[in-house]
Amino acid sequence: MMNRPVEGTRRKSGIKRLRKLRTAIVEKGLDVLLISQPENLRYLSGFTGSSGWLLISGQNAILATDFRYVEQAKGESPDFEIIQTKQELRDWLPGLASDSGWHKLGFESNYISYGGYHKLSKAIKTKPVNLELVPTTGIVEQLRSIKETEELGFITKAVALTDAAFEQARAIIRPGITEREAAWEIEKFLRQERSEGMPFEIIVASGPNSALPHARPTEKIIQSGEPVLIDMGAKINGYCSDFSRTLLLGETDKSLQEIYNIVLKAQTAAIEKAESGMDASQVDQLARSVIEQAGYGDAFGHGLGHGVGLAVHEFPALGPSSSDSLADGMVFTIEPGIYLAGRGGVRIEDMVVLENGKAKVLTKAKRDLLF
Amino acid sequence: MMNRPVEGTRRKSGIKRLRKLRTAIVEKGLDVLLISQPENLRYLSGFTGSSGWLLISGQNAILATDFRYVEQAKGESPDFEIIQTKQELRDWLPGLASDSGWHKLGFESNYISYGGYHKLSKAIKTKPVNLELVPTTGIVEQLRSIKETEELGFITKAVALTDAAFEQARAIIRPGITEREAAWEIEKFLRQERSEGMPFEIIVASGPNSALPHARPTEKIIQSGEPVLIDMGAKINGYCSDFSRTLLLGETDKSLQEIYNIVLKAQTAAIEKAESGMDASQVDQLARSVIEQAGYGDAFGHGLGHGVGLAVHEFPALGPSSSDSLADGMVFTIEPGIYLAGRGGVRIEDMVVLENGKAKVLTKAKRDLLF
Repeated sequence: MMNRPVEGTRRKSGIKRLRKLRTAIVEKGLDVLLISQPENLRYLSGFTGSSGWLLISGQNAILATDFRYVEQAKGESPDFEIIQTKQELRDWLPGLASDSGWHKLGFESNYISYGGYHKLSKAIKTKPVNLELVPTTGIVEQLRSIKETEELGFITKAVALTDAAFEQARAIIRPGITEREAAWEIEKFLRQERSEGMPFEIIVASGPNSALPHARPTEKIIQSGEPVLIDMGAKINGYCSDFSRTLLLGETDKSLQEIYNIVLKAQTAAIEKAESGMDASQVDQLARSVIEQAGYGDAFGHGLGHGVGLAVHEFPALGPSSSDSLADGMVFTIEPGIYLAGRGGVRIEDMVVLENGKAKVLTKAKRDLLF
Repeated sequence: MMNRPVEGTRRKSGIKRLRKLRTAIVEKGLDVLLISQPENLRYLSGFTGSSGWLLISGQNAILATDFRYVEQAKGESPDFEIIQTKQELRDWLPGLASDSGWHKLGFESNYISYGGYHKLSKAIKTKPVNLELVPTTGIVEQLRSIKETEELGFITKAVALTDAAFEQARAIIRPGITEREAAWEIEKFLRQERSEGMPFEIIVASGPNSALPHARPTEKIIQSGEPVLIDMGAKINGYCSDFSRTLLLGETDKSLQEIYNIVLKAQTAAIEKAESGMDASQVDQLARSVIEQAGYGDAFGHGLGHGVGLAVHEFPALGPSSSDSLADGMVFTIEPGIYLAGRGGVRIEDMVVLENGKAKVLTKAKRDLLF
């Protein structure tokens, strides 16, 4: 019973999403769009299985999947026509296209392998089918980047969960515990509080390990005086959060505290000055210039942030070479960092949503220097 | 200190693997092979980061990765030349190929997207580079399919861990517990016993849910008289196990017990009659014919099994349309199933290794009808 209102909203928003997608398909001159990217599938149809395709045309909304997922598809995607197919596109797509009168089929060029494309293309050539394969990118991702109210609600819950987990982490992380033990305690908390798995492996990186932006928890024992970088996410109703803080345990090096304050200043600049309508690369530059001016430009080797939703990394990308631009309804991270090989690193990551032209911070955990 | 012997063995086996790969590269007429599939990367170099490429030629063994993973790569892949690159191949590969005198570059066609290939191909055309891109499949996967002694040791440990977890599961799974709670208890056990994450999401599927071959644990309360299908894996030193059993709780339907016995008979036939040198499809048929003769052919909609190693699904594939053939040293699952929509399903899955021409079962858990 409890799930009904959500279900009703989902079906209504599903219909709205399909309508927007069909407009985009017509604009691109396509008869049909083949969708294989898992979060795009889920966004449009509700289907959460790990193997399947959508085919969306003006008339059709088809979910094709194999034996293993047919029952699940019927339950999760009541508004779609479910067809059971073999696992290789070439075995069934040319026939379906011919029966349906499709001649221009768009596909997601970043989510079909070179090999898969060539098998399909070859199969088409051997059949009496007039079907052109048209590479596309980002059509559904663009729709996904602007969050609906319900989506923002799930994201806000996921953010609250990582905030709560950080309070746990602060209590747990003391000199003497290993990185692995700390990460596992955090994960247990998140999972017991109903996070649907982990969007990515939790990072607890101490001392020199914190200089590896994508460190994995090791058996290293956390020592007093070390920076401890924590990066974690939660997932609620499919929607992710992403969160980082760096603790400076006990008496740390003055230079680490200085770095911490530079990163915090860079993050604050980006949060305060980000506006809808800006290029994503401009927002990156707002933070990057603070770090560059402090002389640490080379030590900030990744982009400022990324969109978060059904995927933990999605549109928009906030980096120096991004061509995305920002709009109200987008949810993304702002996470500058400074990493000094052999010594340690600091990253501070919040999630924000653009509302009324400005960035509203979703993350509630304190950003001050923490001991 | 404890890690040194393993480290030494790994480096020696790494050199042997590279030697075999270079022979294959020469046989295919390539100057260099570009490797992007994550387990192939790890197998050859030890690198476990989530973004990177290997370039293996007669002279070179290069690991290219971006800023985030350079420090990790230096630690994990001491025998490789580490180069720091941008994240897109097109930005650096044409120049490196030109400098290195490579003209025929093989790439893994199932692990490069259509879009990525085209960007690279376009970049090559705009530069004064004489470089041909040659699609390849399965070169490293073939090497990986034959396990070395050390690899078999890790796999055996992972199998022992799922065996132990099944003993826990039998104690935990009683009428009244939800699927989700049971799956989480099993996961906690596996993780606390040092499984490196979960190779796939644990399945605990009861009653009608057990008819979904890839069910996810739900809030459904497990009832007496229901089949409960458990499918789980563990990971030790990167190597996976894969394990399924179906419990029949309390007084179950006679027809379910009948199905159980058919699946068991099918599995036993495949285990006893599998031989090195056979086509993988023949072994599938050994089990499938038992199920077909019992009248349930349509209810066994997946292949009999798959190789297991660094990936939980790898070479060989054991299915009706597989073209793989079996050889000593291969490790794979044998997992027939019968699934009746709305009623329930049974799957029994063991892991075996081919030794001296015959299948040796690695899984120790009982296969009898369990209540």
